[in-house]
Amino acid sequence: MKIVDYRVTPIAFGDPPLRAAFGLHAPYALRTIVELTTDDGITGVSETHGGTAVVADLEAIRELVIGRDPFQLAELEALIWPSGERFAPATATPWEGKLSSAPRTFGAIEVACLDIIGKAIGRPVCDLLGGRVRDSVPFSAYLFYKHKGAGGPFGFELDPTATSGWPAARQAEALTPEALVAQAQAMCAEYGFKSLKLKAGVLPPDQEVQTIRLLREAFGPDTPLRIDPNANWSLETALRCGRELEGLLEYYEDPVAGRGPMAELAKQLSIPLATNMCCVSFAELPESISLGSVQIILGDHHFWGGLRPSVELARICRIWNIGLSMHSNSHLGISLAAMTHLAAAVPNLTYACDTHYPWQSEEIIVGGKLRFEDGSLPVPTAPGLGVELDRDQLARMHEQFLACGLTHRDDEAEMQKIEPGWKRVVPRW
Amino acid sequence: MKIVDYRVTPIAFGDPPLRAAFGLHAPYALRTIVELTTDDGITGVSETHGGTAVVADLEAIRELVIGRDPFQLAELEALIWPSGERFAPATATPWEGKLSSAPRTFGAIEVACLDIIGKAIGRPVCDLLGGRVRDSVPFSAYLFYKHKGAGGPFGFELDPTATSGWPAARQAEALTPEALVAQAQAMCAEYGFKSLKLKAGVLPPDQEVQTIRLLREAFGPDTPLRIDPNANWSLETALRCGRELEGLLEYYEDPVAGRGPMAELAKQLSIPLATNMCCVSFAELPESISLGSVQIILGDHHFWGGLRPSVELARICRIWNIGLSMHSNSHLGISLAAMTHLAAAVPNLTYACDTHYPWQSEEIIVGGKLRFEDGSLPVPTAPGLGVELDRDQLARMHEQFLACGLTHRDDEAEMQKIEPGWKRVVPRW
Repeated sequence: MKIVDYRVTPIAFGDPPLRAAFGLHAPYALRTIVELTTDDGITGVSETHGGTAVVADLEAIRELVIGRDPFQLAELEALIWPSGERFAPATATPWEGKLSSAPRTFGAIEVACLDIIGKAIGRPVCDLLGGRVRDSVPFSAYLFYKHKGAGGPFGFELDPTATSGWPAARQAEALTPEALVAQAQAMCAEYGFKSLKLKAGVLPPDQEVQTIRLLREAFGPDTPLRIDPNANWSLETALRCGRELEGLLEYYEDPVAGRGPMAELAKQLSIPLATNMCCVSFAELPESISLGSVQIILGDHHFWGGLRPSVELARICRIWNIGLSMHSNSHLGISLAAMTHLAAAVPNLTYACDTHYPWQSEEIIVGGKLRFEDGSLPVPTAPGLGVELDRDQLARMHEQFLACGLTHRDDEAEMQKIEPGWKRVVPRW
Repeated sequence: MKIVDYRVTPIAFGDPPLRAAFGLHAPYALRTIVELTTDDGITGVSETHGGTAVVADLEAIRELVIGRDPFQLAELEALIWPSGERFAPATATPWEGKLSSAPRTFGAIEVACLDIIGKAIGRPVCDLLGGRVRDSVPFSAYLFYKHKGAGGPFGFELDPTATSGWPAARQAEALTPEALVAQAQAMCAEYGFKSLKLKAGVLPPDQEVQTIRLLREAFGPDTPLRIDPNANWSLETALRCGRELEGLLEYYEDPVAGRGPMAELAKQLSIPLATNMCCVSFAELPESISLGSVQIILGDHHFWGGLRPSVELARICRIWNIGLSMHSNSHLGISLAAMTHLAAAVPNLTYACDTHYPWQSEEIIVGGKLRFEDGSLPVPTAPGLGVELDRDQLARMHEQFLACGLTHRDDEAEMQKIEPGWKRVVPRW
C-alpha cells in the first residue's frame, strides 16, 4: 500500500467575535484539510491548524509522503520530526502559528495515515491506539467573553437565520459575569455539557472570579469549573484570585506565564494547575516535571505530533502522576472525530475535553455536525476516523479562505480593529 | 474477532552451566508459551518467563482474555495491569520470579494479540508498532564465565553430537580471562556479532577487568565492550574498576545495587551506566531520572508490559536523553522474533541487543533456529511475528518441563549443588 496522492487545502469558516487574552477572534477561523490517497484507492483525511505557513510546511514534505506506506509512521516521523527538532524548546505561546511546526506537520500526516489504515483493515482509529476504554467521550462547555455577532459573513452583525436557542445565544454579547452565565446555560441546554471552562484573561480579574462564583451558584456544587486566564495574570494576582477560587475550581489553567512562576504558584495553592502554554511539547516535559510546574496537561494531538504520540503523552502523565485533559482550537468535525478516538483510547483522560465545536455552525463532513449526547460524543464505530469529507463544503470553505483575505491567525490585529493600539501584554493584571 | 481459545504451556530446554552473580544456570531453562486462537481461526503466540508461578499468573486471567477482541489492548491492560500495580515499586532484582507479575502477564497476552492482529491484516508486528526503521537488528555476543558442560540431558557432561566450532566451544569451561576470550572468538566466528557483553560478578573483579582488557586486545579498538557485574560490586570496587575501564567500555551495566549508589557512581565516572536492575518498571523511572541513576536502560518487553509499552519506554528515553539497549534471558525463537520486531520499530534503540540465543541448541519454531547474518537478525517480513510454533517441539519441551523437576529459576540452589553453602551476597566484592 503506497500513498499516491497528497492534497492540502486551506479553508476558512465563520467564527464569532470571541475574546481571549490574545485579543479577538477574526470573523473567520482558518484550518487546513489534508487528504492522502493510496494506490488501492483509500483516502485518509485530517484537519489541522490554518493559514499559509501551515500549508507551506505541509507542501514542503510532499515528496517525503508520496510513495510511502501509511504503516511506516516511525520512519516518516524521523524524517519530518527528527529528534533534534522534537526536543527544541517550543514557545510558551499556544498559538498555532508560533508552535514548533514539525510535530504539527507530522501529526497531520499521521492522522490521515491512521484513517487510511483503519479503513484498510475495517477498524475505527481508536482500535489502532490500543482500543476503546469508553464508548462516549465527555466534553466541556467552553465559555467565552464575547462581542455581539455571528462571525463569518455577518461579522459583528447577527445572523438573521439564527433567532432562538443556542444559535441565537451564540451571537449574543457576553462581556459581564451575568451574560456569561446566560451563555453557559444556553450552551448546556443545547449540548448537555457537565463541565464548564471559562476563557479568562479578558475582564479585570475580580469580574472573572465573580463569573466563576455566579457559575457555581447557577450550576450547583457538582459541576466542575475551570478558568483559563492564558497567562494574563501576575503571580500576585494569580495567588490572590487562586485563594478566592480554592474550593470552587476543578483546575486552574495557565494563570501565569512560565514554568518557574507556575511551579511557584503550585507550591502556594491547593488547586491543581493545568497548562497548554508552559508545557506544549515533549521537549518541555522534563523541566515541567522537575520544577513541578503543572499538575494537569491539556494535550492536543494537533501539536503534540498526532494521535500515537498523544497516547505516549498520556502514558507519561500516568507514570509521573500528572492529570490529563484536552486542549482545543476552533475546529470542525474531522478534528473532533480524531480527538474523540484519542480520548476513547486513553484511560487516564479523565477530564471532560475542551472543544470550540459549539461555536461553529459550518461543517465539512458528510451529514453535517456531529451530535453530542448529554454532553458526550459517541465514539465513531465506522472504519478509520468514521467521518467522510464533504467535497462541496471543502470547495466552498476553500473559496471562503481565498475570499476572506486572512493568511494567519492574529487576534491582536483583530482586537486593534475595535480598539486601536490594543496590545497583548503579559501579564496584563 | 474474539479470542475463543487460550493455551498456556510451560516448557524446558537445555541450558549450559552459565555463571552469574546470582549463581549457576540449571541444566534446563524454563519458559512459557502462550497461544491465543480467535473465532476466525487465527492463532497468535508469545513466549515469556518460565515456571509454575508464571503459569499460575497466566491461568488466573484466562476468563479476562477469552471472548475479548485482540485489538482492545488498553481495556485488557487496565484489567490485568491496573495503574495501581503498574506503579508499585518492583524489586531491584532482575529475576523472572521476583519481578512484578502484572506487566509480564499482560505483556505475554499483548504479544500474542499483536501476532493475531498482524496475521489478520497481513502485516508484520513491527508495522503495528509504527513500522520498521531498520531491516535487520544487531545483537551482541553475550559472554559468560561457565563450567564445562552442555546442559539439558547432558548436564555438566559434553554433548557428543557437538564436536567442533561454536557447538563445541559452547560446552567448554570458561573460568579464566583467556578462556573467555576464546569463547568470544568462537561465538563471533559463528554469528558475526560486532559487540561483546561480559556477564561479570563471577570472578574476582580484577580478573574480570583483565578479561575486558584481553577482549579489547583480541577484538581491537572498534568493538564495543560492556561488562555487567549484576550489582555484585561495592561502590568502592565499582569506582576503582570503573576508572580502570574508562576508555575501554561502551557502557557499564549495574556495577552496584540501588538507584542511589548508581547515581553516586555516575557522578564520578565518565562511562555511561546502564541498568536492567535498578530501573525495571515504569514505576521506577521518575526516581531513576531525578537521581540520575542511569544513562542507558536495557528494556525488555517481557517485563516492561509488552511491545507497545516498550515503544513507550523508548520514547521516554528519547525525551529524557537516556540511551536504550535490550535485555535478555534464556529464550527461544518466539521471544527473539518479538525482540527483533520491537528493535526494528524503535529508532533510538541504537545499541546491539542482548540475547542468550546462541547458548540454546533447541528450538520451538518451525524451521529451527533463526539465523543471524553478520551479527544481525533480518526483521521477519511474514504477517504477525513471522514465526510458526512447532507443535511437536512444544509437546516435547513440555514433557521435558514435567520431567526435569524444576518449577522456577533458582541459580543459588544450582550453585549450592556444586559449592555447598554458596550464597548470593550483594555486594560480594
